[in-house]
Amino acid sequence: MVKRTRFDDESCPVARSVDAVGDWWSLLIVRDAFDGSRRFGDFQRSLGVAKNILSARLSSLVDNGILDHADRDYTLTAKGEALFPVIVALRQWGEAFAFDPGEPHSRLLDRQHHQPLKPLEVHASDGRLLTPADTEVRKVP
Amino acid sequence: MVKRTRFDDESCPVARSVDAVGDWWSLLIVRDAFDGSRRFGDFQRSLGVAKNILSARLSSLVDNGILDHADRDYTLTAKGEALFPVIVALRQWGEAFAFDPGEPHSRLLDRQHHQPLKPLEVHASDGRLLTPADTEVRKVP
Repeated sequence: MVKRTRFDDESCPVARSVDAVGDWWSLLIVRDAFDGSRRFGDFQRSLGVAKNILSARLSSLVDNGILDHADRDYTLTAKGEALFPVIVALRQWGEAFAFDPGEPHSRLLDRQHHQPLKPLEVHASDGRLLTPADTEVRKVP
Repeated sequence: MVKRTRFDDESCPVARSVDAVGDWWSLLIVRDAFDGSRRFGDFQRSLGVAKNILSARLSSLVDNGILDHADRDYTLTAKGEALFPVIVALRQWGEAFAFDPGEPHSRLLDRQHHQPLKPLEVHASDGRLLTPADTEVRKVP
């Protein structure tokens, strides 16, 4: 078993995000919240996770300001809604690489035309399309 | 401690991706690979993780086709490079929400102009900007 480590003393925003979302259960809870789950039972049915684990993860997401909890409903805050590109990025990568050809999988569609979304692209502030090699990380001095 | 669960029987591409990347250590290894780490020692210095854990995570990333291992170097495969939007999405969310105002953090810059990247946007196939409410998940029947 791997000891849970906190990354929030790191100056890297990727590590901080990893710490705030907490673990993969938390990310799948956020996914379900985007897909319409609101009640404890909704998340439990979707995830098939033990009640004590789900309860701890929901509390942690509320403590981190990602979910609001009121009137038995868990809803995404603005900070939670801002995880949309993270979920879409994981979904598109999974669609491209994690299924055999022809293997069925759920799809994220645009509600208006019922078409798959455009693949996410990384752009410079002036609009140029960027590959990883076109970028550099500037470390904190 | 939370039992490690495999999600790869799920029809959801988010869950499959979560399973393939394995855990947060794996994602931070991928981050470091994008930032130029290639050798075991590079990753160890950056992550401060125990050798046995790092070794297991590197092997798992190789087994999943995300890293290649040759001549003591670990390098991203095409499948690994395709995780770029996932890393960028986590980074931008962290930059927006995981630091106090004025708190220093590393930055991902466009190499040509040394400017921060454009925030990721989710678009429909016809180019319309989409919010979460503009999308729907079609479950596998």
